[in-house]
Amino acid sequence: MRFTSQTSSDGVIEQLFTLPFTLGEIPGVLWTPDGTAGTRPLILMGHGGGQHKKAPGIVARARRFAAECGFAVAAIDAPAHGDRPRTKEHNRLIGEMRNRMQTGGDVAPVLAEFHTLLANQSVPEWRAVLDAVQELDHVGAYPVGYWGMSLGCGLGIPFIAAEPRIRAAVLGLNGAETSAEAAAQITVPVEFLVQWDDERVPRAASLALFDLFASAEKTLHANPGKHAEVPMFELDSSLRFFTRHLS
Amino acid sequence: MRFTSQTSSDGVIEQLFTLPFTLGEIPGVLWTPDGTAGTRPLILMGHGGGQHKKAPGIVARARRFAAECGFAVAAIDAPAHGDRPRTKEHNRLIGEMRNRMQTGGDVAPVLAEFHTLLANQSVPEWRAVLDAVQELDHVGAYPVGYWGMSLGCGLGIPFIAAEPRIRAAVLGLNGAETSAEAAAQITVPVEFLVQWDDERVPRAASLALFDLFASAEKTLHANPGKHAEVPMFELDSSLRFFTRHLS
Repeated sequence: MRFTSQTSSDGVIEQLFTLPFTLGEIPGVLWTPDGTAGTRPLILMGHGGGQHKKAPGIVARARRFAAECGFAVAAIDAPAHGDRPRTKEHNRLIGEMRNRMQTGGDVAPVLAEFHTLLANQSVPEWRAVLDAVQELDHVGAYPVGYWGMSLGCGLGIPFIAAEPRIRAAVLGLNGAETSAEAAAQITVPVEFLVQWDDERVPRAASLALFDLFASAEKTLHANPGKHAEVPMFELDSSLRFFTRHLS
Repeated sequence: MRFTSQTSSDGVIEQLFTLPFTLGEIPGVLWTPDGTAGTRPLILMGHGGGQHKKAPGIVARARRFAAECGFAVAAIDAPAHGDRPRTKEHNRLIGEMRNRMQTGGDVAPVLAEFHTLLANQSVPEWRAVLDAVQELDHVGAYPVGYWGMSLGCGLGIPFIAAEPRIRAAVLGLNGAETSAEAAAQITVPVEFLVQWDDERVPRAASLALFDLFASAEKTLHANPGKHAEVPMFELDSSLRFFTRHLS
């Protein structure tokens, strides 16, 4: 794991890193509260489709997790996103999705194929990042949470199902198409966000995914509005959810 | 308004009262934080069917609203509940509901008829109680919230629709059968609780009621479990919801 830059503002240190993995590198970012040593809960954040590790919604949440809760937070570019290379297969599926969006075709099956392709790559990458980050003196081995919406939910579900270090998850804006089998293996507490007027994820698919989680404690929060219009008070709720389950 | 008893414990004063109304009296209870003068937000709490103004779930929540948020809280016995008399019509409908529960019949239409009957009586009663309580020196005229589950939701919806002093509501455990028209007139922020495995309220009826509220801010919280198994962390959420909207 190699740190390439470090900045500090408003009590939060932000470190960009790259982690060598198989034939390439995983680019990531780590936020930690400034001036406090020792181990702490870690939140792994999975960005949405078309976004990247420093998308505004990721940065804003990560800084609050670090500043208000004292958590460490890590985000990485998902495969084919941000600074990651795209394969021919990535480009073919992205082109097909764009084409169907423009012509009013059915995007869902192509999106499901894309998510499945990325998840096969993403799960071992997240495990490698978690191994590396937990070895850092200012993070350490402590209970871990996962936060991911949309693509970050789709890639997070098989990761959470496979990774016992994850103890709680905030997920949402995704349906049951791609990750049904893994969802049914998740037993940790889940807070699941649904946008009631989501133009990308059918309401029934969201409710079906919530149904699948095997968690004894799972709570669904639905709010009016489109895919990208999650209200900011849900961030307050996420903060409290992780504090309750990781601290 | 006549106070009949006063006790104080753990920083909360509990006062029982009766309010003369038309031909009878409304029995109620008022909780306020001990030792702080002046006006404060008021929460009106509507109990569930078969319960009363001092049911354990009401008292536990009221005391936390008063102690932790500094709110005043009032609850009354709904018509035909607690210390209130029952008419022949009340008894007929209650008997019919019990009968259908025992024989596996369809309770929903009888319950809807019972709720409608009680709501006609309950709305003017709640308004009289609100008038009286807001005249007290230790409550005063300040924004008001309404909390009600099950019957307390069914009776609360027409009250909130009719009463502009109510600025925020936590509702739930009820479907769209009895209160659809009034629900569509509600525009204040609503936090709406659904039990995912509710044995009394069909999931689709709950979601349909949530859909009806005209509020720009409405949020649905669904949790696994039966009708009476709302998790306690939802009380924390209610506290924050009312604090956000009334303080």
